[in-house]
Amino acid sequence: MSAAHLIAFDADDTLWSNQPHFDQVEARLLEIIAHCGEPAHLTEQLNAVQRRNMQLFGYGAKPFMLSMIETAIQLTDGAVTGKDIQQIIDMGKELLRYPIEPLPGVVEVLTELRRRGHRLLVLTKGDLLDQESKVARSGLGDLFDHVEVVSEKNEATYRRLLTRYNATPEEFVMVGNSLKSDILPVARLGLRAVHVPYHANWIFEHVDPAQLAGLDFHTVQDVRQVLTLVN
Amino acid sequence: MSAAHLIAFDADDTLWSNQPHFDQVEARLLEIIAHCGEPAHLTEQLNAVQRRNMQLFGYGAKPFMLSMIETAIQLTDGAVTGKDIQQIIDMGKELLRYPIEPLPGVVEVLTELRRRGHRLLVLTKGDLLDQESKVARSGLGDLFDHVEVVSEKNEATYRRLLTRYNATPEEFVMVGNSLKSDILPVARLGLRAVHVPYHANWIFEHVDPAQLAGLDFHTVQDVRQVLTLVN
Repeated sequence: MSAAHLIAFDADDTLWSNQPHFDQVEARLLEIIAHCGEPAHLTEQLNAVQRRNMQLFGYGAKPFMLSMIETAIQLTDGAVTGKDIQQIIDMGKELLRYPIEPLPGVVEVLTELRRRGHRLLVLTKGDLLDQESKVARSGLGDLFDHVEVVSEKNEATYRRLLTRYNATPEEFVMVGNSLKSDILPVARLGLRAVHVPYHANWIFEHVDPAQLAGLDFHTVQDVRQVLTLVN
Repeated sequence: MSAAHLIAFDADDTLWSNQPHFDQVEARLLEIIAHCGEPAHLTEQLNAVQRRNMQLFGYGAKPFMLSMIETAIQLTDGAVTGKDIQQIIDMGKELLRYPIEPLPGVVEVLTELRRRGHRLLVLTKGDLLDQESKVARSGLGDLFDHVEVVSEKNEATYRRLLTRYNATPEEFVMVGNSLKSDILPVARLGLRAVHVPYHANWIFEHVDPAQLAGLDFHTVQDVRQVLTLVN
């Protein structure tokens, strides 16, 4: 019998699907501004606006809404209609309230890890209210001991987390789909990280594979395999 | 010599001014849509949109930007120009990066409370990234032991806080300008609350005075008086 661990799970695209919803909304935006150019050009513009706004706006649906609006204004040279902008806002509102369904295996894994006596944490970056609302809508809230919403997941964040939850480096495990946020900083600190890839990835979470060279972490194809990695 | 307290300070309009900046932006919005009606009517519309969006969007500059845009679309029946909407977004961006200057007496009070050995906490509701950025821009970060950003300040929030920071009810003190968020729930729990009124108030923080009847809390006209209330 091993000691109790502090096991942190990323939320979006680890506990439930998120990126596909954003991709759908982006596809609808491209339809609204289709007359402004080729899809690849429109996406490039949207990404440039998002990149510029990211430090100021952070992550999540509200920054995405504002960046979509700015993109539509820029690409139409100000000729976008109020009706189109209202449609963008309405699409963004849907991103804040769609039903949240846990991904396959998630409930089973969390229930079993709790039964084994581990402490479970949601660790997610982004918008506080939005993420708290998603945990509530997912019905998973009672399976977690804590919900921690942070503005960035970097090495300093993980160091703070261990202090805040009184966990030794040996006790900590991070599980998530983002190499950039969930794996890289954790592995760099020499902590345990379990990568559960998801089919849809956000462009701003991409990592140069060279950065991963020499780092130690697990990759599993199914979240249920976490149960064999953590006793 | 009394025991060390856990003293929580509200941020906006307690540590630094906030509402006047929002009021200025609102005044500029009213200029942009001045052709749509009397100022009182425009404000009423903006408040109605904000009230509707609050549960979904939460607090802060990004919700305010989105609600201003929706208001402009509604009041112009969709005829608002892309240029006007970009102006609204640019005004909102200013709210996310203006220099933060501590209100008079704040640095003195925090420095002295730390010297006396108390634990100091920023307790603010709103947008995580925005509030963390304000603490950083204020230069006050090093005077606080913790920064806690929450989505709502209600009785459950304060109960959770005491647990999280291992504080007894006797040890806790809340200092802030909002009767609704900083005083009412704290006094209802029988905890110590110090009200430091600010000249500008947000309409959605107004409290019916009847709700305060029979509740015990302090009111001071200058934050420096906290030093005489907490030894």
